[in-house]
Amino acid sequence: MTRIGILGYGNLGRGVEYAVEANADLELVVVFTRRDPASVKVRSGVPVVSASAAAEWKDKVDVLILCGGSATDLPEQTPAFAKLFNVVDSFDTHAKIPAHFAAVDAAAKAAGRVGIISVGWDPGMFSLNRVYSNAILPGGADYTFWGRGVSQGHSDAIRRIPGVKDAKQYTVPVPAALEAVRSGSNPTLSTREKHTRECYVVLEAGADAAAVEKAIVTMPNYFSDYDTTVHFISEEELRRDHAGLAHGGFVIRSGATGKGGEHKHVIEYSLKLDSNPEFTANVLAAYARAAHRLAKEGATGCRTVLDIAPSYICAQSGEELRKALL
Amino acid sequence: MTRIGILGYGNLGRGVEYAVEANADLELVVVFTRRDPASVKVRSGVPVVSASAAAEWKDKVDVLILCGGSATDLPEQTPAFAKLFNVVDSFDTHAKIPAHFAAVDAAAKAAGRVGIISVGWDPGMFSLNRVYSNAILPGGADYTFWGRGVSQGHSDAIRRIPGVKDAKQYTVPVPAALEAVRSGSNPTLSTREKHTRECYVVLEAGADAAAVEKAIVTMPNYFSDYDTTVHFISEEELRRDHAGLAHGGFVIRSGATGKGGEHKHVIEYSLKLDSNPEFTANVLAAYARAAHRLAKEGATGCRTVLDIAPSYICAQSGEELRKALL
Repeated sequence: MTRIGILGYGNLGRGVEYAVEANADLELVVVFTRRDPASVKVRSGVPVVSASAAAEWKDKVDVLILCGGSATDLPEQTPAFAKLFNVVDSFDTHAKIPAHFAAVDAAAKAAGRVGIISVGWDPGMFSLNRVYSNAILPGGADYTFWGRGVSQGHSDAIRRIPGVKDAKQYTVPVPAALEAVRSGSNPTLSTREKHTRECYVVLEAGADAAAVEKAIVTMPNYFSDYDTTVHFISEEELRRDHAGLAHGGFVIRSGATGKGGEHKHVIEYSLKLDSNPEFTANVLAAYARAAHRLAKEGATGCRTVLDIAPSYICAQSGEELRKALL
Repeated sequence: MTRIGILGYGNLGRGVEYAVEANADLELVVVFTRRDPASVKVRSGVPVVSASAAAEWKDKVDVLILCGGSATDLPEQTPAFAKLFNVVDSFDTHAKIPAHFAAVDAAAKAAGRVGIISVGWDPGMFSLNRVYSNAILPGGADYTFWGRGVSQGHSDAIRRIPGVKDAKQYTVPVPAALEAVRSGSNPTLSTREKHTRECYVVLEAGADAAAVEKAIVTMPNYFSDYDTTVHFISEEELRRDHAGLAHGGFVIRSGATGKGGEHKHVIEYSLKLDSNPEFTANVLAAYARAAHRLAKEGATGCRTVLDIAPSYICAQSGEELRKALL
């Protein structure tokens, strides 16, 4: 059995709680929170403990799964808690992964613990597929498409515009671009050709819709390089029609082999997810199993999904895996 | 640099020769053959040596890639050559993998070598995707579809029928079944519902076409459980239209998470390959890199793709991978 702790009981933390229940060899033992523990009701009824008292659970938790956000929570929490526990997080700010890796590695090595960072679907399962397909088709081209799904960062950017009360932004892959990539023709695709952006916006009373729309579609980095559509809706419609957490995407690599590259090959991996946080939670749970195994073998320091053999995330033995799934 | 040897210079061996050229850190140094070496011309011009003299190359080859067939070659060759070299093979008889693993493991351990077996796309990349998605969605259902592509075993079965001069058999996934699986409905699919079989047959002069067709479509295990179509064509048409080595397929897992399994998730991996042997060769080349690394670390014994961390098959460092592909 692997005794699991959760830090942070939002959508992701609740997803981890379900994920742990779905795996017979994992057992949830505690939820840590930065809020008042008395205010947090956890579905499974395990103890809720203040994050500041986590050290008392040092020997009662095999792996702590960190369920905070990448912007401000995880850069501080993962190195800090790696001093007490083996840790797994879903840090997803791609550009800052090297710095986060270094911080977690130093803390985990000093404490004799294992940390696994950037576990989820991108980074995570998408990264694995980029790495496998790059190694197999060294002369090829990579394509990642996201969606249809809500981008938190783009929704937040819209919410910061004066006159906007609330908003959701969907990232949508362009079907023609997907088909061009699948044909194996290795097309060069601009940002605009790959994705469109759909915005559902609730205005403050008296706000200027035309001005808000212009502020969105011309916003640099976020929207100006895309074909963006803006729909103004009521607060009730936003709640009723846009509360879903579905997401997904595609990682495709195409390359060629043989005499003059005469033979084309296309490798495609795709995810269609009803719940982004619950799927991420399931990936975290599987890698918590790996963290525990690595720790039992005496490993220390930071890892990513790229450093971990697939068999380590499975409950079955190597013999069972070879017989049933190889 | 990793010095590569090839045993067997058929379609797969020639594919490995191209694959090694596509990777700057791999170098082909020798081709071993069971034929008369003087009769084998290798495109790259490396020495061609009798397989019986392989021992002389013991210290000049880092990894030997075995390019023989799974029916009779590899069960003997892989354990035998693991006494001399680190070895990688594409053994693909699923039911016999446990026995092959045990034989290669014993030989490699005794000799202090590393063997990696069943490297390719199925087993191989498809296995990896089955294992990853099973670990992530423990309560789900697995589906593997093959094709459109030639099945060597089914083509051979047709060729054994009296009156048949030559034949090619295509395995074809049923689009409606694929769509049902992609919907996340976890359908129960019979053998007949998943694949159809298309046969292109050249008759001997004077053979009874109706009798041959009946012998094919009623053949137990191979055809009787499928909707099978038989096309009689000329030898010239077979050569002209059915010499291709294209193949591919789909590995799909669907499962649910959350309260009462309210959220469905579909993970799909697919390959569309112009050349089955050249793609397999590229996978073998990537895992030859892993075999060499493991051997340098002092590992011995047998591995499969399930036991090897993704970063081991890559030419880039962990730091480069985290920065560029994670």
